[in-house]
Amino acid sequence: MTITLSPWPSLVTVCALIVYFGVTINVGRARAKYKISPPQMTGNPDFERVIRVQQNTLEQLIIFLPSLWLFAAFVSPLWAAGIGALWIVGRILFAWGYYQAAEKRVLGFGITSLATITLLGGSFVKIILAIANSGNTP
Amino acid sequence: MTITLSPWPSLVTVCALIVYFGVTINVGRARAKYKISPPQMTGNPDFERVIRVQQNTLEQLIIFLPSLWLFAAFVSPLWAAGIGALWIVGRILFAWGYYQAAEKRVLGFGITSLATITLLGGSFVKIILAIANSGNTP
Amino acid sequence: MTITLSPWPSLVTVCALIVYFGVTINVGRARAKYKISPPQMTGNPDFERVIRVQQNTLEQLIIFLPSLWLFAAFVSPLWAAGIGALWIVGRILFAWGYYQAAEKRVLGFGITSLATITLLGGSFVKIILAIANSGNTP
Repeated sequence: MTITLSPWPSLVTVCALIVYFGVTINVGRARAKYKISPPQMTGNPDFERVIRVQQNTLEQLIIFLPSLWLFAAFVSPLWAAGIGALWIVGRILFAWGYYQAAEKRVLGFGITSLATITLLGGSFVKIILAIANSGNTP
Repeated sequence: MTITLSPWPSLVTVCALIVYFGVTINVGRARAKYKISPPQMTGNPDFERVIRVQQNTLEQLIIFLPSLWLFAAFVSPLWAAGIGALWIVGRILFAWGYYQAAEKRVLGFGITSLATITLLGGSFVKIILAIANSGNTP
Repeated sequence: MTITLSPWPSLVTVCALIVYFGVTINVGRARAKYKISPPQMTGNPDFERVIRVQQNTLEQLIIFLPSLWLFAAFVSPLWAAGIGALWIVGRILFAWGYYQAAEKRVLGFGITSLATITLLGGSFVKIILAIANSGNTP
């Protein structure tokens, strides 16, 4: 038996993973460019910023994806997808800025943080309401 | 079409993510306190312990969240939520201890490991049984 | 109310997490063997390769698990499980090779990448078709 998933949050999930896949490939390319072999993770600040973009995207995905799907289930799949699309835009800006200089990561980071807080906070409120209402049912 | 998620495991998921969000914010505060700018990840053991709390929470979330939901789906949503709540308590103790000294991370780490093994092991057994039973159906 | 999850992708998820749990335990054992205490993450290339196996498995799980379940929901649970089983085999080869030498990680890495790209790409195509078809319905 298969579960039915809303297509729009599903599309946002796939697109977010494609962005992550892209910044992961960039680490491999940076390893070649700066001649830094695995398992080394440091040695050149330009290389380390490329690593940090990937690591930070991973660190954000673990909170973004569950929040996206909780929001989709408890609030609205379409709104989840819209806010999720904003997250993706923020992540691209973050990567593009951070690749240039550490200071330029701030705008993209702010956008993704705002999107994540909205998804997480909205889910929290609606889950609490769902639990409170289920208690009221005789 | 939206999927229906049990509210108690959903609440545990949101609370676990809020704890993770908190330890992530602590990294930013520790960067300011110890004057360690991105992309640097080392330079002071006190700072590195704050980083490790966040990294380790991420490393545990990737196994905790899927185990929680498999347990909720194959065993019991309420028991999943209860064991998940224990995981959250363990994570808070882990962070609180590790911030003080590396040795003090052990108790919290043990509690979260026990919770994770229960969720993962319980899911494993019930999934195997579900597959075996479906094969017995004519 | 519980959601119904297909047992085969569920089994693949549990097995992938058990592999990850195993490479995580190996980090603890390597810490003891090479006498590298937390929060240190470097100091010996043999130790660093053990860390990298765990980190890389985490970096791959965040893209593998959502892709597996989107593929299960939009394409086929059985095919998802089959390709997912291949991913697990690739991850074991990756760990086994990387523990010996950095160069020996390539085969396992290639297999897991191929599995992930298939799951992600297949989901992408079917989600786009699902959205296109839903628009055609009057």
